[in-house]
Amino acid sequence: MKIGILGYGNLAKGVESAIKNNTDMELSCVFTRRDPSKIKLLSENVPVFSIDDIKNYKNEIDVLIICGGSALDLPKQTPEFAKYFNVIDSFDTHARIPEHFANVDKVAKDNNHIALISCGWDPGMFSLARLYGNCILPDGNDYTFWGKGVSQGHSDAIRRVEGVKDGKQYTIPIQSALNEVRTGKNPTLTARQKHTRECFVVAEEKADKSKIEKAIKEMPNYFADYDTTVHFISEEELKKNHSNISHGGFVFRTGKTGWNKEYNNIIEYSLKLDSNPDFTSSVIVSFARAIYRMNKEGITGCKTVFDIAPSYLSPLSNEEIRARLL
Amino acid sequence: MKIGILGYGNLAKGVESAIKNNTDMELSCVFTRRDPSKIKLLSENVPVFSIDDIKNYKNEIDVLIICGGSALDLPKQTPEFAKYFNVIDSFDTHARIPEHFANVDKVAKDNNHIALISCGWDPGMFSLARLYGNCILPDGNDYTFWGKGVSQGHSDAIRRVEGVKDGKQYTIPIQSALNEVRTGKNPTLTARQKHTRECFVVAEEKADKSKIEKAIKEMPNYFADYDTTVHFISEEELKKNHSNISHGGFVFRTGKTGWNKEYNNIIEYSLKLDSNPDFTSSVIVSFARAIYRMNKEGITGCKTVFDIAPSYLSPLSNEEIRARLL
Repeated sequence: MKIGILGYGNLAKGVESAIKNNTDMELSCVFTRRDPSKIKLLSENVPVFSIDDIKNYKNEIDVLIICGGSALDLPKQTPEFAKYFNVIDSFDTHARIPEHFANVDKVAKDNNHIALISCGWDPGMFSLARLYGNCILPDGNDYTFWGKGVSQGHSDAIRRVEGVKDGKQYTIPIQSALNEVRTGKNPTLTARQKHTRECFVVAEEKADKSKIEKAIKEMPNYFADYDTTVHFISEEELKKNHSNISHGGFVFRTGKTGWNKEYNNIIEYSLKLDSNPDFTSSVIVSFARAIYRMNKEGITGCKTVFDIAPSYLSPLSNEEIRARLL
Repeated sequence: MKIGILGYGNLAKGVESAIKNNTDMELSCVFTRRDPSKIKLLSENVPVFSIDDIKNYKNEIDVLIICGGSALDLPKQTPEFAKYFNVIDSFDTHARIPEHFANVDKVAKDNNHIALISCGWDPGMFSLARLYGNCILPDGNDYTFWGKGVSQGHSDAIRRVEGVKDGKQYTIPIQSALNEVRTGKNPTLTARQKHTRECFVVAEEKADKSKIEKAIKEMPNYFADYDTTVHFISEEELKKNHSNISHGGFVFRTGKTGWNKEYNNIIEYSLKLDSNPDFTSSVIVSFARAIYRMNKEGITGCKTVFDIAPSYLSPLSNEEIRARLL
């Protein structure tokens, strides 16, 4: 399988590493909006091309993995390049998924391609855990906890506050809430009862720190509904101590079975990841295999992880996976 | 969806309860090898028929759930009844899955039916956790722990020992081994290091208890490779304290990502179940929905959980699951 990557940030580097760790795949090329001659890949002997020339490679790539941002890049890029390629993205702006799905679906179908959107761990593997859990236990509760890990969206929000030079925000699950769920207490939890938010902020010289702290803590949607801690640190400290890319989380489905709903059940799916982008890209690469195989069978249009039979993800034959993993 | 059940033991009663908990399904009838007039269902107004008349109902049931035993019933029943119905079983004799798959596949295809074998939680949901984990983290380790819960196979083995009147065996995961896996130590674990086995035995009057204990502890495959404890108790105690049907377990996939495999990742899927048969049957019933929908699309032949796109399991539309669960 020949994979192309669009973009070359952290996620793309993760995809490059994941391809190296899957022997049935090779990285064909990387496309960039920057000057290709300025990009130095981890891989030897893999060309970097300008995004402007991408159409020329439409017959040379089995799947294009689009590593742009959900806010501005993917809503344009995924439908645009589904014209030329089978594509995957990690679109995670939840409210806009129906619109994105429809746009991508039309182009992919019109061009006999397959596209997979919103792939990764959340959306992605956590979505699968929620779906399987809901189908098995229709009478029950869902709980998703994230962290401890850096939230890109919340870090961006901090950096938009006046007087802030740089900053990182950690989302931290509240252990007592996790334990209540895990021991079957089926609590009703507010946002504040599930996660705390811890911010490390580099202030501009002469900025009013108490004003920054207030602006962060009272920011609607992002921080107002949480217990938020703000630490002011130096730029050096931020680089040294807060470049960690680890993340993780927990998905629970709890629910009742039995004629009189007398039995309790707890399904838990959890991830502990040293590198958020490298795990996300490992998920994406296994789904790239799946959609490539599905497209060879004539399947086209936009898909999500829900539409992919798990056997398509594996490099092994169906006989082998039944023998080894069933 | 109209469901039929073949057999009426604990698993079948679980299926009956699970159907009640899914509003898009109804139980059409139960088939039995016993005298139908002697069977009293939990459901009102659902007929019980003799297995001898099963062919007469071939146009009245969407999926037949076969609730027989893996040793003697399913190898015959599943291929036999795939002639007349879409069928599901929970076949769990691992070594014989290839043969069972082939037998069922042929009959199902010849009769335009779909069949799903080996459905439940292990094989079943645990198999899915293993497959997804292996595909995402190709360079890694698998760990499956079961329990605490009664193992039917090991309880049967105890009861075959001379001088034993009745008995139950609990499989218990060793907490320190679980913790080593969960904290990323990637241990190499023997059977003895993963589980202990605890037996509660009712001896025949005048039986030699030390001989029984020795026979159990030294039994190859079942007990010799484990630290096994044997308790002799009365028949009353066994009934009173060891009729518990709870079970559960843990599936881990640990593995490395990154260009130099510098990042560790731990995926954990776990179940805590008050009732083993009721959870198993809840899984089966959600997959019954899936295969019914797939067969309506013209898909035939034998499948496993690996072959079922998760969206088929849900009573919700694809738009709804994308909006609510992605």
